[in-house]
Amino acid sequence: MKALQQLFGTRYPLIQAPMAGVQRGELAAAVAAAGGLGSLPCAMLDAASIRREWAVIRSQTANPINLNFFCHTPPAADEAVERHWRECFAPYYAEYGIDPATIQAGPGRRPFDDEMADLVCELRPEVVSFHFGLPTQELLQRVRSSGAKVISSATRVDEAQWLAERGVDAIIAQGIEAGGHRGVFLSDEIDTQVGTFALLPQIVQAVDLPVIAAGGIASAEGVAAALQLGAAGVQVGTAYLLCPEVQTSAVHRAALRSDAARFTALTNLFSGRPARGIVNRMMRELGPISSDAPPFPLASSASAPLRAKAEAQGNGDFTPLWAGQNVTGCREIAAAELTCELMRLIE
Amino acid sequence: MKALQQLFGTRYPLIQAPMAGVQRGELAAAVAAAGGLGSLPCAMLDAASIRREWAVIRSQTANPINLNFFCHTPPAADEAVERHWRECFAPYYAEYGIDPATIQAGPGRRPFDDEMADLVCELRPEVVSFHFGLPTQELLQRVRSSGAKVISSATRVDEAQWLAERGVDAIIAQGIEAGGHRGVFLSDEIDTQVGTFALLPQIVQAVDLPVIAAGGIASAEGVAAALQLGAAGVQVGTAYLLCPEVQTSAVHRAALRSDAARFTALTNLFSGRPARGIVNRMMRELGPISSDAPPFPLASSASAPLRAKAEAQGNGDFTPLWAGQNVTGCREIAAAELTCELMRLIE
Repeated sequence: MKALQQLFGTRYPLIQAPMAGVQRGELAAAVAAAGGLGSLPCAMLDAASIRREWAVIRSQTANPINLNFFCHTPPAADEAVERHWRECFAPYYAEYGIDPATIQAGPGRRPFDDEMADLVCELRPEVVSFHFGLPTQELLQRVRSSGAKVISSATRVDEAQWLAERGVDAIIAQGIEAGGHRGVFLSDEIDTQVGTFALLPQIVQAVDLPVIAAGGIASAEGVAAALQLGAAGVQVGTAYLLCPEVQTSAVHRAALRSDAARFTALTNLFSGRPARGIVNRMMRELGPISSDAPPFPLASSASAPLRAKAEAQGNGDFTPLWAGQNVTGCREIAAAELTCELMRLIE
Repeated sequence: MKALQQLFGTRYPLIQAPMAGVQRGELAAAVAAAGGLGSLPCAMLDAASIRREWAVIRSQTANPINLNFFCHTPPAADEAVERHWRECFAPYYAEYGIDPATIQAGPGRRPFDDEMADLVCELRPEVVSFHFGLPTQELLQRVRSSGAKVISSATRVDEAQWLAERGVDAIIAQGIEAGGHRGVFLSDEIDTQVGTFALLPQIVQAVDLPVIAAGGIASAEGVAAALQLGAAGVQVGTAYLLCPEVQTSAVHRAALRSDAARFTALTNLFSGRPARGIVNRMMRELGPISSDAPPFPLASSASAPLRAKAEAQGNGDFTPLWAGQNVTGCREIAAAELTCELMRLIE
């Protein structure tokens, strides 16, 4: 039961879920200071930005921190696929007065590489978490040699076994309720993705490692239920989205507070990979899953200018409104306070 | 915490999920005798068969029993839709030497009606559960006047509120993990269906009634976790599928025991409504969701002769292999023993 606290060196068996594009160092620092494992999502940051956020964190706490990276293989752009994808958005470009010829590359997601391995060895975070599998054995070895514990997400039992065989220290069982990008990596199939209640005990049974439950956990009772199902700890993201330490946009905050947040779906429209967000106009009209979307992360460029224009009008029709299936835990309170509330039934 | 036992008059807060087409009275009797609420699925039975199964049950136990009915509106058959649907199966008919002109109507699912209301008043089950909403107010009133408690399934918060407004005594929160037909009735959308871990606490929060958790519950720890999340009790189906009292077919049993059971999906191919089953050849090749399927229950006729021929060869390629996302609770032990094991952490 204390396996995770021992592994991470934290007071609580809680990971604040890394939420790329939404949070930076402040949230990680606040959760870490409160006794959880704070996470800095690095996939959309360059080395200089990561160093800057790291400095913010270390100015506030010496407690354990997790740096999170993506492990996808960047695809080659296919001009025909890209062109067809932009054609799908033509009515929206016309509506918003956007010239498709001016569209820039979308927000990049960089896979873990040599430069990032150097950075891990320089910053020495206590934990490194990966999404979409693991990097090469050589890169993984460099992370290990820095002293970091290594964890990654599994959305299926075979993914958990694959990670265990490669020597991770713990596994996040990411149930279908979870917000943002699914960590699925041994398949691109989403029809067979599994809910937390079913996935968690099966992964606990299949591997001899601490398992961290993610997806739908939004209260102290949810944390207790996950531990009851065999989890060594929990990863919570959505519940933190309204905290003042998070850079959640105004349209995203408004959506989270509205009844619309009851309806989320997996969509590949925003990035090319399935991710869970609140259903909005773009998801309703084009998807939520489209076989026309270019591979991750190339799909993102088509909607980026629409998002910018719509958000400027206070409208989230083209914004990825990432959220899990249970927003009832979202509170406009300090992240430290939320952390303590989630851990109320622990100890 | 004892609300459900008081409501049903049972020792345990457990409903054996009604599984139409797979189980008859023996399972209901065995679970009832062990202290749970045994359920007889009536949607595929005529009045004479229900009376016969009721007699089987009452010869074994006087404990509370649930009769389960469907509340769909039977659609009018559309010849063009039917013809097109059979064309989708043409290669399979050729493979199995079936003349499409000889195909009979598929297994019917009868909605709750006057005759069934008469039967409820005659048999006086302690509980009546409905799937796909509720029958007309007049029919519902007749059920109530028989003395039966009334329950129904919700897959969304608004469905739970709709049921609560119509005066049900308790609500089953059916998470996406659950096997068989989803109870969804206010929408035909499945992209936004919710996992148990997220759905259950939201329904508990939204209605002032006992809530029964369903979907992914397969162990005593699962039961305890559901109660931790606010459930007054649980409904368990899949775990009973290998019990000797259940008429699970040989191909279905073999699939449940195999690694294939890790991969289930929602499919409308077998009936026209989304239901969760183990992925097989028909689901892989035609779906799992097809917009060509006629409305429930008309879709069933096209695959029925293929199922019969394939099963005779010991092959489940065309069989609805209904199962939830967690088959780890399936045990080849008496249903009474399984019931007691599931209730191990209760009391």
